[in-house]
Amino acid sequence: MAIDEERKVTIAAIAREAGVSVPTVSRVINGRSDVAPGTRQRVEELLTQHDYRRRSSRPSVTASLIDLVFNDLDSPWAVEIIRGVEEVAHSSGIGTVVSAIHRRSAPTRQWMQNLRARASDGVILVLSDLAPPFHAELRRLNVPVVVVDPAGVPSLDVPTVGAANWTGGLRATEYLISLGHRRIGFIAGLPRLLCSRARMDGYRAALEAAGIPLEEELIREGDFYHESGFTGGTSLLAMPDPPTAIFASSDQMALGVYEAVRQRGLRVPDDVSVIGFDDLPEVRWSSPPLTTVRQPLAEMGLLAARTILRVAQGEKIESPRIELATELVIRDSTAPPK
Amino acid sequence: MAIDEERKVTIAAIAREAGVSVPTVSRVINGRSDVAPGTRQRVEELLTQHDYRRRSSRPSVTASLIDLVFNDLDSPWAVEIIRGVEEVAHSSGIGTVVSAIHRRSAPTRQWMQNLRARASDGVILVLSDLAPPFHAELRRLNVPVVVVDPAGVPSLDVPTVGAANWTGGLRATEYLISLGHRRIGFIAGLPRLLCSRARMDGYRAALEAAGIPLEEELIREGDFYHESGFTGGTSLLAMPDPPTAIFASSDQMALGVYEAVRQRGLRVPDDVSVIGFDDLPEVRWSSPPLTTVRQPLAEMGLLAARTILRVAQGEKIESPRIELATELVIRDSTAPPK
Repeated sequence: MAIDEERKVTIAAIAREAGVSVPTVSRVINGRSDVAPGTRQRVEELLTQHDYRRRSSRPSVTASLIDLVFNDLDSPWAVEIIRGVEEVAHSSGIGTVVSAIHRRSAPTRQWMQNLRARASDGVILVLSDLAPPFHAELRRLNVPVVVVDPAGVPSLDVPTVGAANWTGGLRATEYLISLGHRRIGFIAGLPRLLCSRARMDGYRAALEAAGIPLEEELIREGDFYHESGFTGGTSLLAMPDPPTAIFASSDQMALGVYEAVRQRGLRVPDDVSVIGFDDLPEVRWSSPPLTTVRQPLAEMGLLAARTILRVAQGEKIESPRIELATELVIRDSTAPPK
Repeated sequence: MAIDEERKVTIAAIAREAGVSVPTVSRVINGRSDVAPGTRQRVEELLTQHDYRRRSSRPSVTASLIDLVFNDLDSPWAVEIIRGVEEVAHSSGIGTVVSAIHRRSAPTRQWMQNLRARASDGVILVLSDLAPPFHAELRRLNVPVVVVDPAGVPSLDVPTVGAANWTGGLRATEYLISLGHRRIGFIAGLPRLLCSRARMDGYRAALEAAGIPLEEELIREGDFYHESGFTGGTSLLAMPDPPTAIFASSDQMALGVYEAVRQRGLRVPDDVSVIGFDDLPEVRWSSPPLTTVRQPLAEMGLLAARTILRVAQGEKIESPRIELATELVIRDSTAPPK
């Protein structure tokens, strides 16, 4: 369009008008800090005034919108994944459209309609249970799909980004053993999710490697939510010979164990060590700060967004599943047994 | 297009093919629960197969994308606001594009370019300090803007959705007084934000109304983040005559006070009552669960989205600033003084 053509302005022209060098204008555009405040302001005003648009280094055929879909936006880790996706998308000039479909078919259908209407160029699903008809519909729309999967889902025919759950379970348990614990309680996640099984198998493997017999009565079933951690923790602490440490396979459940410990008049880690799984931002602020296994949620979002961009540009993705490393983060909720 | 025309199918045709009544198909489309599972599945498969699109009850000129812009996606309350905006947008067939601009000019410029390129139909800013040149640029783009403002900003020339900060500060302090506390510490938020001042003025007003003299040495300056709550709490507890209750003007700072109490070998609420401000989802899981002043963040997002839709449809907005009520949520971190 003529108006858009007229608006185009070069860095050189901006530099001339501002009375500064071309590299200085570049530094302002690139957000570098080595520019005097007055100069920066003058250049920015001119950039705005002339409606300067950075020339893109990539062809203009790339996606302009990525859809990022959650079951629910009620989880504190949602914002971590959004952060990762947004970072990649934003810097590529792509908008991140965030939706929640609540595991129900009406919102999912609505989302499918919206997706088609806005001609989204890629979809990142953060969920494990999109109903089969919708999978088929997505395939027909012929839009690149990547699944971000902190939960571990059965194999899908789309690229999947996950975390090393088994290794995380192993490391957490090894650490408790290294502190001297022998009776280590475990609170499992939702049994239907593979990640729950992987974390528990890591726990079992560490015990076995240390020659500690597995005691089934030290294992409680949970669902990743706070309440089940509280219930499991309460029940473990009520045993005649309670565990000296509890490994909860989510941070929320670990905080539930905190509350069980508190209500029993005990203290973390003096009386019971507690370890979680996720490393949500807020567990740094728990009291005491929680030792936990970090899932790199933002990095998982970041990698999913990069994968979408690659697929959208026609690249072939070599591995259908990528697992990012988990990492033990030692804080103050773990100590040697009394 | 011809293909789209061919795809159009009526509810009546779906009902015929599924061998059910038209109202039954409607119930499935509207996500109602009073449909037998088998019927639901059959109808859903047919809807998908025929690519059924719900006829919209509103004209197609409404917005198809709303931009929701944060300074940073590092705050646990971001997801609450996203949830509120998404709920309204999604059900109106509108995508919610989430961005973070990090208070820096390069990402802001990039976002402005993206905004223009995707022809966004409305902008919700969750920030208090967009640089003036960008305000001007937004005005030139002639796109409806609403500010969601949990912080309290000086008057802007756009509609603003906030919360009743002063009343929240008043209620929290009144409650501590009603429990019998007389020495009540206060940790303030960032002094440059109006909400910090409003919360502190509420604290002062409650003391004054109860005839308790204000003691300036019971007030500490904070910045809403955890660390400043820890520092302020530590300093208050180290006083020769420490307060029996502490009102922190953010939840994060309240959790910092928890840690200060713990490190002193004391307990909440047995030795010190603590009260926060925000009601972030995770403070239900703090140990003990935190008494706090609830800011209706999701509702604020919801109202902002509705306002954008109204402005986009040419409606006039009567009030430039709407304050939603705050509410005291009593949990287990507050008790009468010993």
